[in-house]
Amino acid sequence: MKIICKQERLIKALNIVSRAVSPTSTLGITKGILIKTEGDMQVSLSTTDIQISITTKMDAIVNEYGGIVVSARLFTDLVRKLPEGDILIVTDEKNIVFIKTDRSEYELQGKEEGEFPRIDMDEEGKQLKIEKEVFREMIDGTVFAASTDESRGVITGVLFELKEKTLSFVALDGYRVAIKRERNEAYTDEEIKVVVPAKLMREVSKILADTSGSEEEALLDIDDRRMKLFTGDTQVRLNLLEGEYIKYRDVLPKDNKVFTTLGRSDLLEAVERAAMLKSEGKNAFVRFSVGDDAVTVSSRADEGRGRETVAAEKSGESMEIGFDARFLTDALKAISDDMIEIQYNTSVSPCLIKPIGGDGFEYLILPVRLSTVSV
Amino acid sequence: MKIICKQERLIKALNIVSRAVSPTSTLGITKGILIKTEGDMQVSLSTTDIQISITTKMDAIVNEYGGIVVSARLFTDLVRKLPEGDILIVTDEKNIVFIKTDRSEYELQGKEEGEFPRIDMDEEGKQLKIEKEVFREMIDGTVFAASTDESRGVITGVLFELKEKTLSFVALDGYRVAIKRERNEAYTDEEIKVVVPAKLMREVSKILADTSGSEEEALLDIDDRRMKLFTGDTQVRLNLLEGEYIKYRDVLPKDNKVFTTLGRSDLLEAVERAAMLKSEGKNAFVRFSVGDDAVTVSSRADEGRGRETVAAEKSGESMEIGFDARFLTDALKAISDDMIEIQYNTSVSPCLIKPIGGDGFEYLILPVRLSTVSV
Repeated sequence: MKIICKQERLIKALNIVSRAVSPTSTLGITKGILIKTEGDMQVSLSTTDIQISITTKMDAIVNEYGGIVVSARLFTDLVRKLPEGDILIVTDEKNIVFIKTDRSEYELQGKEEGEFPRIDMDEEGKQLKIEKEVFREMIDGTVFAASTDESRGVITGVLFELKEKTLSFVALDGYRVAIKRERNEAYTDEEIKVVVPAKLMREVSKILADTSGSEEEALLDIDDRRMKLFTGDTQVRLNLLEGEYIKYRDVLPKDNKVFTTLGRSDLLEAVERAAMLKSEGKNAFVRFSVGDDAVTVSSRADEGRGRETVAAEKSGESMEIGFDARFLTDALKAISDDMIEIQYNTSVSPCLIKPIGGDGFEYLILPVRLSTVSV
Repeated sequence: MKIICKQERLIKALNIVSRAVSPTSTLGITKGILIKTEGDMQVSLSTTDIQISITTKMDAIVNEYGGIVVSARLFTDLVRKLPEGDILIVTDEKNIVFIKTDRSEYELQGKEEGEFPRIDMDEEGKQLKIEKEVFREMIDGTVFAASTDESRGVITGVLFELKEKTLSFVALDGYRVAIKRERNEAYTDEEIKVVVPAKLMREVSKILADTSGSEEEALLDIDDRRMKLFTGDTQVRLNLLEGEYIKYRDVLPKDNKVFTTLGRSDLLEAVERAAMLKSEGKNAFVRFSVGDDAVTVSSRADEGRGRETVAAEKSGESMEIGFDARFLTDALKAISDDMIEIQYNTSVSPCLIKPIGGDGFEYLILPVRLSTVSV
């Protein structure tokens, strides 16, 4: 193989494919990048850690066809430090990779192209076109609520469900449920219901950001075991989680009696400040005192106590309820609207948080016992 | 005590005094900030971890005189998160500190003012006026070369020496020596020779940056045991290191035979790239091949090898010499000039690096054996 490419272009491609390079993997080859010529004018870069595989193409001058696997970390770090401009990459029969610029010459020991796993990117499932920006918002609006306990199976994933032209993303961890919905008449009438590992969803969100500026849409190809994403010169393949997802609709409260309307950033700042008064080594808890024209957010610790007043409109009775502060701030950060509604029933029933004037996002949160929040 | 002050002003003062708050200290009171009224228009904030003590004053409306010690971490974090504008701070007879804004009310358990150590800021030593920017450059240009091995006594400090109107800062660790000099006719004729702990010097550099924009000069007051720094509303007191400093002048090479002139940033980038090829868990070593019109920087590791060519003018014989890459990059980053000179003698003698056209900075570095650098 013999190619010439631009450092600045190569870095962009390396940023994309590095999303599949697991720093903790013990599989030697998954720490490698496959660099391969694609005709006379392009090369592809590919990475895989089996769970997620990424291929992206970029312009290059191809003088000699071929392919090679190089150490992802070393190659990426080195290219990042090279100056902008042309880089010549040449391989020899011993799989040595020569990387040359005007003043630099590096030789890295590579591996046979054949040692890299074949990544099947065939389109063979149900297909859906989605705006990348919408896809990213749906991931970022739900993924934080998925369980991070790897033993919890299917709830370490994000439910991806298409039904009646409405796409729903759902994530939950036993204490809260985040739901994001998007209806689009252009969506296919087919039904899709799969669960994507949350940690892969996070990488997809980053890849969508890295590739912004090229295509505005992505094509998804989904079968029972895999989701593939095609956008511009980049292809991503994810392994799906197996198992039936939780029937989350059953837990959504339908008989809430108290409703408050509040400014999102006012409440977020109040909860973040109050959360600083917490017992060492424990979660931060806050108490909401839902009054006629304000919600009072209070907290207590050995070192002192705090009280925040957030202006709010209320319908229904006054009440008290306690929360794990992080479960509130996670949701308040995921909402972009200025005003939100919080719906309550009793101090031991789940609450519902949603932006005013949009049912695209719903967030259910379980309260903590008021005795836990010893204000 | 009852005061009203601006959040944005209080944060600036807290940033300055937090430089003396040791997160690892086990002395309870050294995790506290003393807040104290100073007449009707000012309050002072003070912190100390015994080794370093800082006091800074700021404008405030004082309604009731007094003082209180509060938890530095909690108070600083809380004030950081409060919105800009007025903060009311009130204490009661139980040493509770009430912190109030329009919508927030916090109560922190404080401690008696009397529990805070008295910090003597009297001027009683030899005095020197120094430009803050010069002081900062002298610290940043040397402090990195001090030994970080706490058992090494006096060489964990920076030598501060005034002699014949020339101020010298020296730091060394057994492998290198960094020297920065500044001659100023306005300096006192007195001689000063003290050693300041390097980690305190780092904090001083940050305090000088935090207080930039106010006074341009600082007054230093130095006796055998302490250095005090006065600038604008801020006073700093440092404990000095005891013991005789190394006679560093004896080790400075005087008979160098090979001289090269190179671009500083070209060499820095070349060494940083070459240093990526290093054996795992070991320092990065590079070999210099000093030729007629270039210095070749090369490196080797299991994964491959690298070769960088840096244009250089030379006088003297061609030669080979090996270095620990970090000792080179530390110095090259500390120099601001575009061009540098490197002087060599033999492959086992110390080298000297200095900026062209300025003897304000000198850096001596011991080479490593060429057998260590197996290029």
